[in-house]
Amino acid sequence: MVSRVGHRPLLPVALASLSTQHPSAMSSEILSQIDQFLESQSDRFEAQLIELLRIPSVSADSQHASDVRQAADWLVTRLAACGLSTELIPTAGYPIVYAESPPVPGKPVALIYGHYDVQPPDPLDEWITPPFEPARRDGNLVARGATDDKGQMLTHVQSVAAWLQTVGHLPIQVKLLIEGEEEVGSENLEMFLVENRERLACDCVVISDTSQFAPGRPAITYGLRGIACYELRLTGPKQDLHSGSFGGAVTNPAKELTRLLASLIDDEGRVQVPGFYDQVEPLSEVEREQWAALPTDEQAFQQQLGVKGLSGERGYSQLEQRWARPTFDINGMWSGYQGEGPKTIIPARAGAKFSFRLVPYQDPAKITAALQAMLESQLPPGVEMELIDYHGAPGFVVPLESPYVQAASRAIEQGFGTRPVMIREGGSIPIVTQFAEQLQAEVLLLGWGQDDDNTHGPNEKFCLADFHRGIRASAHLWHHLAALPDSV
Amino acid sequence: MVSRVGHRPLLPVALASLSTQHPSAMSSEILSQIDQFLESQSDRFEAQLIELLRIPSVSADSQHASDVRQAADWLVTRLAACGLSTELIPTAGYPIVYAESPPVPGKPVALIYGHYDVQPPDPLDEWITPPFEPARRDGNLVARGATDDKGQMLTHVQSVAAWLQTVGHLPIQVKLLIEGEEEVGSENLEMFLVENRERLACDCVVISDTSQFAPGRPAITYGLRGIACYELRLTGPKQDLHSGSFGGAVTNPAKELTRLLASLIDDEGRVQVPGFYDQVEPLSEVEREQWAALPTDEQAFQQQLGVKGLSGERGYSQLEQRWARPTFDINGMWSGYQGEGPKTIIPARAGAKFSFRLVPYQDPAKITAALQAMLESQLPPGVEMELIDYHGAPGFVVPLESPYVQAASRAIEQGFGTRPVMIREGGSIPIVTQFAEQLQAEVLLLGWGQDDDNTHGPNEKFCLADFHRGIRASAHLWHHLAALPDSV
Repeated sequence: MVSRVGHRPLLPVALASLSTQHPSAMSSEILSQIDQFLESQSDRFEAQLIELLRIPSVSADSQHASDVRQAADWLVTRLAACGLSTELIPTAGYPIVYAESPPVPGKPVALIYGHYDVQPPDPLDEWITPPFEPARRDGNLVARGATDDKGQMLTHVQSVAAWLQTVGHLPIQVKLLIEGEEEVGSENLEMFLVENRERLACDCVVISDTSQFAPGRPAITYGLRGIACYELRLTGPKQDLHSGSFGGAVTNPAKELTRLLASLIDDEGRVQVPGFYDQVEPLSEVEREQWAALPTDEQAFQQQLGVKGLSGERGYSQLEQRWARPTFDINGMWSGYQGEGPKTIIPARAGAKFSFRLVPYQDPAKITAALQAMLESQLPPGVEMELIDYHGAPGFVVPLESPYVQAASRAIEQGFGTRPVMIREGGSIPIVTQFAEQLQAEVLLLGWGQDDDNTHGPNEKFCLADFHRGIRASAHLWHHLAALPDSV
Repeated sequence: MVSRVGHRPLLPVALASLSTQHPSAMSSEILSQIDQFLESQSDRFEAQLIELLRIPSVSADSQHASDVRQAADWLVTRLAACGLSTELIPTAGYPIVYAESPPVPGKPVALIYGHYDVQPPDPLDEWITPPFEPARRDGNLVARGATDDKGQMLTHVQSVAAWLQTVGHLPIQVKLLIEGEEEVGSENLEMFLVENRERLACDCVVISDTSQFAPGRPAITYGLRGIACYELRLTGPKQDLHSGSFGGAVTNPAKELTRLLASLIDDEGRVQVPGFYDQVEPLSEVEREQWAALPTDEQAFQQQLGVKGLSGERGYSQLEQRWARPTFDINGMWSGYQGEGPKTIIPARAGAKFSFRLVPYQDPAKITAALQAMLESQLPPGVEMELIDYHGAPGFVVPLESPYVQAASRAIEQGFGTRPVMIREGGSIPIVTQFAEQLQAEVLLLGWGQDDDNTHGPNEKFCLADFHRGIRASAHLWHHLAALPDSV
């Protein structure tokens, strides 16, 4: 089923009709056998997750290089032990872990994608327990990477293992592709993808790196925002200067930094980079209505974040602002004296990390060029700038009508005991667009996490019940993909 | 001569006529005896300065509390050894070192002010040699506090010691007042001043904490800028958030910080705090002409700072911008992730240290109130602010015609071999206005430093030849003050 080229016509399969179909008696027996096996293995699955979370595989920090490699080795050992044909593929950066089960003629091929690297754990002093010593609290496992993405990625590894250890084989061919550079832009994976289209050929890509809509409300995410991510460095005098003796004549890099960054957005929350909104499509009325119907509790949301109010682009609801509108955020900033008490200097340097979240059809490269020109045009004499383009990825949407989406919906219903809702997500998985483009495959974003999992902050967590529900949904997914009519 | 109240009429003494007066044969003999003594002691004077510079008396950093006290103790030992009546006076913060010589009836009283605390040494990695291990380089002594103010302050201690060890007494009464909180606002000294007006009564206050106009161009500084110094802290969500999941709806404290700080100044370099310029007096044509006539080398200035251009308030020369116009500078700034690589978060907090340099007649308290109101009025929902008012001091000018200024001019001419020029200085010595107001005394700012001494930056230095010239000028100053006509 893999040899097709170009886009397929989409089958208008109604979600309701599919989700009430009954599997054959035999497959029903197989699934209940697998469910029993999963239940019996739950302690072992958690122990494995804890083992992986103990490895501080922070890809952004070169001091953790050997830890990142250790996480890759851990996965290779685990996948090979399941009986999968497994390979550790070197890249210019961190290696790619690849494994596959045998082909199943006439059945679809699913490529499972995940990542074994994690975000830096800073600020360290806000963790209640150390980030790389997983702790159980309130039904959650707390550790850096618990939900993003070690915990979620492992649900698929374990569902595959469960099929192999119970049935002895999988009902479809699965290919596992697990990288170590997702948190720093996936550049080497992108190259690997382009160069290995044949090997990676598949019908759908399964990714669990997103969230449910809310606790007890599993979701399929049909849209993601893109990202464009930068560091701006300003250099002024060759060293810090006395602000009394020199202030007023010498250009202050910190002052210029605030001026440049403030110029990037207006009072209505609209980004000011020339041409920024040129490719942004307005939201459809259908989407706006569907989202408005989703239950949201503004009070609880603010309380969860610890804020007394929100602000954002004027004219859009909170979900619209977070899911489908582009943004500008400063992620980090530094200059001069940060210690106790005053210090009256003109700092020699100032810098900031900042990012735009993009929506489908915005082009990161075009935005980078316009940004660079805009910043340079505003630079006064006495300060030099360097703009570092960390990485960019366009936004992404999948058709709601896809039969793969329907199969996933059924699997989630069985794994979680309730039908998933269709949502978008404000975050970015830069590789998603690449998968869709390079492999011409449908991408299924099946998130088992929660919005308050603190994925990039301190005390990241993953609900252990959802971990096990995710494994079950994943195990059922292979069955439902195998059951899809041949014409797909 | 101390019992006067209110302002005295100023004597129109011409500088030229005074500087050509010849001292009596006896005083000439005394001065040459002192000059010889100073020359014989130069190694010992340098050794003493090095000893004091080794003490890391950083008043802004509470980790250095015992070091700051050690510097005070060092001075007490030194001054008592000279035979001065010496006292270590406790305050709510760091102690005040006070010493005095016996009264000399019919002669003026000079109060010598200095400080034994220093600025923090950050950024540490830019020092060529460690900040508290004084090193000799290119005729300079390099160490934190070398010029600001340990080296300069010590010139007066040593000139007083020289008189006592050669002549056996001073020709006037000197009172030494050396504090340990100049770099953090001198609050306790201000209280001490108000409460000890009788004890500190004097005709002139001598302070060496400024610079010469250029190497070989000693100067008397007749004006200083004031200062208003703040820290702004913004608090958003209770912890860092994923900028994908939450970006667009959640107020970003770093973004708001740049917006607030950028709003404080316009494109022409004018501060936007309401009422900021209300009390600012325009520069006189005479001053503008005098300063325009001072030799300045724009190329060399920029090269010294390592910049390719300057910027500042439109319509003013570089000296005017630095000496006599108010400014806004950011001194430090922080938020979110400052490590290697990208990290896509909305930071929980952001903060900045910033300061205004003020000119005579601007009122720091009024500016603080207007600033607070201006910032608060711009704060969006979802972020809380705290404005910390570190310290403020108004600007200062002294009359050029004062006979004390003339006496100082003569002493400097003998100490440095050339007549001083009359300049202003952009820095602030917050206590100066207090001296003038509380003691009704003339303040003489006799700086032995250089503009490129890096007083608040790394590799602070003090020219050793100027150190010795300063001691000689100081020793001659006591003589010339004693020689002033009784009617002063």
